[in-house]
Amino acid sequence: MAVETVASATTTSPDFGPAVALSCRECGERVPLGPVFACAVCFGPLEVAYEFSSGAAEDAEGLRKRIEAGPHNIWRYAPLLPVPADVASKPNLNPGFTKLVKADRLARELGITGGLHVKDDSGNPTHSFKDRVVAIAVEAARNFGLTTLSCSSTGNLAGAVGAAAVRAGFRSCVFIPHDLEDGKVVMAAVYGQDVVGIEGNYDDVNRFCSELIGDPIGEGWGFTNVNLRPYYGEGSKTLAYEICEQLGWRLPDNIIIPIASGSQLTKIDKGLQELIKLGLVEEKPYKIYGAQAEGCSPVSTAFKAGHDVVRPQKPNTIAKSLAIGNPADGPYVLDIARRTGGAVEDVNDDQVVDAIKLLARTEGIFAETAGGVTIGVLKKLVETGQLDPAAETVAINTGDGLKTLDAVAPTTRPSAIIRPTLDSFREAGLA
Amino acid sequence: MAVETVASATTTSPDFGPAVALSCRECGERVPLGPVFACAVCFGPLEVAYEFSSGAAEDAEGLRKRIEAGPHNIWRYAPLLPVPADVASKPNLNPGFTKLVKADRLARELGITGGLHVKDDSGNPTHSFKDRVVAIAVEAARNFGLTTLSCSSTGNLAGAVGAAAVRAGFRSCVFIPHDLEDGKVVMAAVYGQDVVGIEGNYDDVNRFCSELIGDPIGEGWGFTNVNLRPYYGEGSKTLAYEICEQLGWRLPDNIIIPIASGSQLTKIDKGLQELIKLGLVEEKPYKIYGAQAEGCSPVSTAFKAGHDVVRPQKPNTIAKSLAIGNPADGPYVLDIARRTGGAVEDVNDDQVVDAIKLLARTEGIFAETAGGVTIGVLKKLVETGQLDPAAETVAINTGDGLKTLDAVAPTTRPSAIIRPTLDSFREAGLA
Repeated sequence: MAVETVASATTTSPDFGPAVALSCRECGERVPLGPVFACAVCFGPLEVAYEFSSGAAEDAEGLRKRIEAGPHNIWRYAPLLPVPADVASKPNLNPGFTKLVKADRLARELGITGGLHVKDDSGNPTHSFKDRVVAIAVEAARNFGLTTLSCSSTGNLAGAVGAAAVRAGFRSCVFIPHDLEDGKVVMAAVYGQDVVGIEGNYDDVNRFCSELIGDPIGEGWGFTNVNLRPYYGEGSKTLAYEICEQLGWRLPDNIIIPIASGSQLTKIDKGLQELIKLGLVEEKPYKIYGAQAEGCSPVSTAFKAGHDVVRPQKPNTIAKSLAIGNPADGPYVLDIARRTGGAVEDVNDDQVVDAIKLLARTEGIFAETAGGVTIGVLKKLVETGQLDPAAETVAINTGDGLKTLDAVAPTTRPSAIIRPTLDSFREAGLA
Repeated sequence: MAVETVASATTTSPDFGPAVALSCRECGERVPLGPVFACAVCFGPLEVAYEFSSGAAEDAEGLRKRIEAGPHNIWRYAPLLPVPADVASKPNLNPGFTKLVKADRLARELGITGGLHVKDDSGNPTHSFKDRVVAIAVEAARNFGLTTLSCSSTGNLAGAVGAAAVRAGFRSCVFIPHDLEDGKVVMAAVYGQDVVGIEGNYDDVNRFCSELIGDPIGEGWGFTNVNLRPYYGEGSKTLAYEICEQLGWRLPDNIIIPIASGSQLTKIDKGLQELIKLGLVEEKPYKIYGAQAEGCSPVSTAFKAGHDVVRPQKPNTIAKSLAIGNPADGPYVLDIARRTGGAVEDVNDDQVVDAIKLLARTEGIFAETAGGVTIGVLKKLVETGQLDPAAETVAINTGDGLKTLDAVAPTTRPSAIIRPTLDSFREAGLA
């Protein structure tokens, strides 16, 4: 065996499993795997490219069995992710393999007859889908020998990064707008790592982070949603893998996905395409639908107007985790919705609150506002004839209602306040 | 085959799987399985009795394989619970099989060398262990043909019952003190079922519920923690099963368990004893430790004083989910701690907050105050020499920090507030 010389600062060679390069989504330019996110040729976004066939020849059945024998978290899909084969042995929050809930009561209420499932990602370690993307970014940071994990965030991501960094053994320093709600500050800061409030709005925080990456201070820093973004994004593919595996290795007819940057939707489509190519599911048509809040609906607006470009908006919605006015992957979302015969739709804040309550009272799932957007849009799609109720549909709940209690608090009250007597209870008319 | 006459209001015969009777913990009197909780002879608590050997002869290896092939939730243990064999096909929140986290960083910090795991029950559907006990109560209610699920609660249980009732197709009507925090009211009421505020404290709520059970209004009502309590309590056994299975079908040396009523601790011990009897784990000594908050420490006080009886206390602690001043299972907890060579210890509210933060910054797990009590007591047990650091220990986190944000909010702040410039960041000293 040859002696290997390791040139990087890390003590082991980077190992990205089946990933072989970064590839520009716009011009196709390929660059080596590294902590970079924009194409040097055309400034397009870089994404991870794979050679799944490399290594031992393995048929679909063998791969399926290998996955099924894996751990009950996203690492069962390590053969399809930019991570080493032994990733499950490294300290990580190990998110994923959340419940796919058969939502018969919700289906009845919405008039869906073809079957409805809710993929409930509130079951992740910090109770949002962010744990999936952060987990992959953490392993990329480990591969690159980075020492500090960071991000710009309005709350959920900061908490997910803080928790993941602690478990994985990194320092973390995350940046948030200085005037965030107390609860979100606590969720980010409780992990005892650095949380820095920036005097400014989320755009100012983002700009500051871009500056920091270019400065010597930022050496050794991995920003999950900036210089580690190509890896981070791949985490969303696992939603596609899990949905298909949990359905018995087959594609649903429709998937409804909330849109913030649009990355989750594009990566779910990428994941479905991979499953088809690898023969893990049988190819058949599927439709992808995007869900936005009316108060931040740049993609939905473009979709309805038949535009290819997405005009930025100034967000104003209670669905803050989706409030990205200039979504990076907006044009790709439009492509996918149109190619698959889906749609992009939006609902207003009242409809978001109603949908949170609808999901809670039919399925016992308490979703955050983003989940309300998704279920609200699902309802609207059925009502407006944009979604076939006889088709099998999966809707994604990306986070937990405990994170956005304020959205429903004003209209969620006790049925009655009574004295501790049976007479008083009888008078309340609830007996 | 004989034709069966069904005498009850239900359309199918009750099927409690391996459970054959209720048995009085005090006098051993046996009564048929029913929605009753107190012995008619001595008023002792009734608990579920099993005949595991009935039916087909099956060796331990066969049973273990059957469990391992089961669903990834508590229903994999259906052969050991008072539920029908096909329970997994019924609509239920399907809690359990939460993560057993190898807590190496916490172990190092505490000086534990024999291995430390945290059983993280915040991963359950409504983010507390209550989902386990409620799930079994729901199936009992189904078996008895009850139509309304109820409970007295200070918050967590009300939410767990509300969500479970919705999923399982029951009406629910839960009772809480009228002056609960808004967040807890929302968590209980968001499921759209009846939540009734009672003008009085938790004791008044409890008294009212006991009255309601005896009244015709209460016909068809299942109170999870009153008339369904024998079944409800069995849900906690699944914590014992999961810990041992996740360790590779073996007993740990020590388990640290928070004490509210004490039921969870006694049922975990019952579960461990069952695993030994059934040959699913090899018999060896284990120690069970109970954890209380100093502001509500009736069991700890009795343990230290060498008493057999538990003198009630008026609770005053931030660990509200453990604040039961007159714990029903207190004497049994004392028995178990003494029999196994464990202990019962308590920590004050500051230590609870410190322990929440300790767990968060070492393992990325954000626990509710009850989890802080458990980890705080673990730390104290090691420091005072009551727990052998060279032994293998499991500590249980019973709930999620999002539910008790207020406990840590005042002392969990950003590291710095800066202007969005690199100079300002440098000045903050975090670069």
